[in-house]
Amino acid sequence: MENFTFYAPTYFAFGKDTENDTGKYVKRFGGSRVLLHYGGGSVIRSGLLDRVKKSLDGEGVSYVELGGVKPNPRSGLVYEGIDLCRKEKVDFVLAVGGGSTIDSAKAIAAGAVYDGDFWDYYEGKLVEEALPIGTVITISAAGSEGSPDSVITKEEGMFKRGATGEAFRPKFTIMNPALTQTLPAYQTACGITDIMAHLYERYLTNTEEVEVTDRMIEGLLLTMIHEGPRVIADPDNYQARANIMWAGMMAHNNSCGVGRTQDWTSHNIEHELSALYDCAHGAGLAVVMPAVFTYTLEHNVMRFAQAAVRVWGCQMDFADPKRTALEGIEALRNFLISIGMPKNFAELGAKEEDIEKLAHTCCYGDVNTGTVEGFATLDQKDVENIYKLMVF
Amino acid sequence: MENFTFYAPTYFAFGKDTENDTGKYVKRFGGSRVLLHYGGGSVIRSGLLDRVKKSLDGEGVSYVELGGVKPNPRSGLVYEGIDLCRKEKVDFVLAVGGGSTIDSAKAIAAGAVYDGDFWDYYEGKLVEEALPIGTVITISAAGSEGSPDSVITKEEGMFKRGATGEAFRPKFTIMNPALTQTLPAYQTACGITDIMAHLYERYLTNTEEVEVTDRMIEGLLLTMIHEGPRVIADPDNYQARANIMWAGMMAHNNSCGVGRTQDWTSHNIEHELSALYDCAHGAGLAVVMPAVFTYTLEHNVMRFAQAAVRVWGCQMDFADPKRTALEGIEALRNFLISIGMPKNFAELGAKEEDIEKLAHTCCYGDVNTGTVEGFATLDQKDVENIYKLMVF
Repeated sequence: MENFTFYAPTYFAFGKDTENDTGKYVKRFGGSRVLLHYGGGSVIRSGLLDRVKKSLDGEGVSYVELGGVKPNPRSGLVYEGIDLCRKEKVDFVLAVGGGSTIDSAKAIAAGAVYDGDFWDYYEGKLVEEALPIGTVITISAAGSEGSPDSVITKEEGMFKRGATGEAFRPKFTIMNPALTQTLPAYQTACGITDIMAHLYERYLTNTEEVEVTDRMIEGLLLTMIHEGPRVIADPDNYQARANIMWAGMMAHNNSCGVGRTQDWTSHNIEHELSALYDCAHGAGLAVVMPAVFTYTLEHNVMRFAQAAVRVWGCQMDFADPKRTALEGIEALRNFLISIGMPKNFAELGAKEEDIEKLAHTCCYGDVNTGTVEGFATLDQKDVENIYKLMVF
Repeated sequence: MENFTFYAPTYFAFGKDTENDTGKYVKRFGGSRVLLHYGGGSVIRSGLLDRVKKSLDGEGVSYVELGGVKPNPRSGLVYEGIDLCRKEKVDFVLAVGGGSTIDSAKAIAAGAVYDGDFWDYYEGKLVEEALPIGTVITISAAGSEGSPDSVITKEEGMFKRGATGEAFRPKFTIMNPALTQTLPAYQTACGITDIMAHLYERYLTNTEEVEVTDRMIEGLLLTMIHEGPRVIADPDNYQARANIMWAGMMAHNNSCGVGRTQDWTSHNIEHELSALYDCAHGAGLAVVMPAVFTYTLEHNVMRFAQAAVRVWGCQMDFADPKRTALEGIEALRNFLISIGMPKNFAELGAKEEDIEKLAHTCCYGDVNTGTVEGFATLDQKDVENIYKLMVF
């Protein structure tokens, strides 16, 4: 295990009706003038936004509103939010929605107190200062509710990039699993896939002897395998949604990623797909992961065999561990298909003729410099080959 | 899953040589005048205390010292510490040692800013205010380094009781696994047992459908089963100690205990043993757990069968789940014996003729009122029967 620091000071209020305490938590964490940031119709239609406003009103917390966050959130709205925060002297940013809304809120919170262009943070500058952030989440997926990360797409060039820093950790997060019950099955499945990707990206490590985090990741993956099909079969299953929601947070607050190198190759390769085709991030990951894992398998066969046996219940082939490893990857693919995820480029809406461009942007975009560094080191040719594995 | 809140804002610095940053962290979390609290010879002999002092000096942080913490820390030293803090205008309490030292430091930190008797907290008053606390831990066991809990023994009557409250969560904790390498094997094994007890006490729940926390607990138990024998066989195995250390923190910061009722029967029943015989807490738990689990098995056979299959690798007897459940308890007992723990009253130094007194104090001590409430509800007769199971 490598040396590390871990600090996850987000306050979580979990369970039924907890959104009615939003105002109380904003106040506890120092907010008096809030930017209320959200996406589109669903938080309005469901009445959630009204309940949150009522709770703010009840505590005498004032707010200005900025809706309109889209999946794969864009830089344009971030700039708008930053201006609004400055003009309205906002001291707290509250995101009501999913990962996109939270990520957009984080970008605004950092930009509002930064003299330069907020995009600097998405080109590698560490986020050390931001307005305090709170979240009321409506989908289990991104893990952004407990993480120091944010991903934004720059409209000019359609670059999708991440920023990180402790100032991005929400002060509080309200997690009511019932709020996710109205999600379409497809979005629920995308969320499940994203959570599983966050786990696999940590699992695929080059650090040896990290049993504790291996076992935690395996436990969380087993939870997804247990609860995923239950919630797809019965969208009103509160208990399944509750288990998925807590697993989603634990998957990404890094308590199971500490002290080990991490992969993030699948996220890197997927980001180009959702940036170009505007497909759902989770759907992209469902197509990307089996391809990446198959391609990088030889880098450490035993690691994939371990996942196959411990997570997917495969029998170890002691004479041919690679067969077991591949069986585990196939089990993952079949699981994702079973919950309604696409399996290839065609189902995702991606085009074979774009592969060279996708691979080039991935390797030479404004962050990477010729290779994708992760579990294995990949150059543009490798990334092209991986995209090709998604065409079948 | 039940509604819950979760807040674990301790900053962890983990790895080799991290104790040299102690001064930096004390300063970051607002300390300028420190009570340096520790136990006895080992932190002095190993040079750890000197390294910590050097680090405080380097940051211009002044300190007063209070050593002498004993296992099963006593109220007498706590009162002494409280007086010292007031006299010396201390603004930060730094514990250098194991769970006993941390628990004693927490009691002092609360008492120093409280007008009444600090023991009020150990009789049920919630700890809402305390001086900030930092820790440099030297044993993986108590989990006190990341928890809001503390256990103290009141010398008058030898009552061993716990207190809790968010103010008891350390601001920072320094975890260098190498510091545990000089521990005698017996103490290492006691720590392993304590960690496993913290996991079992959460596992034994009456809440249904808590797959995520079940799986996390199982993963952490599997880690202990993997790493325990490695570290007993090779005390210098840094990696095994690192895995145990992080597992010990995760086992007790409650991220795997949220949203479910917990047991704590074994801790309740053990506390009487270590209070009366001054045996090591972990050693007591090794004797207590198999007895408690065997006695309460019928309360939920399937829960014990699940642990047997998922944690201990037993084959499920579908015709007789109770047989599987018992096999899992036997596997736990044999594991604890294999790492050097005592198995019965005689090996622990406990006496059969004290059983009635032990059970009475447990059920009618200054906290419980006739029963021990946990996984199952037990009266004095039940507790006597459980103690009797430890005599064989």
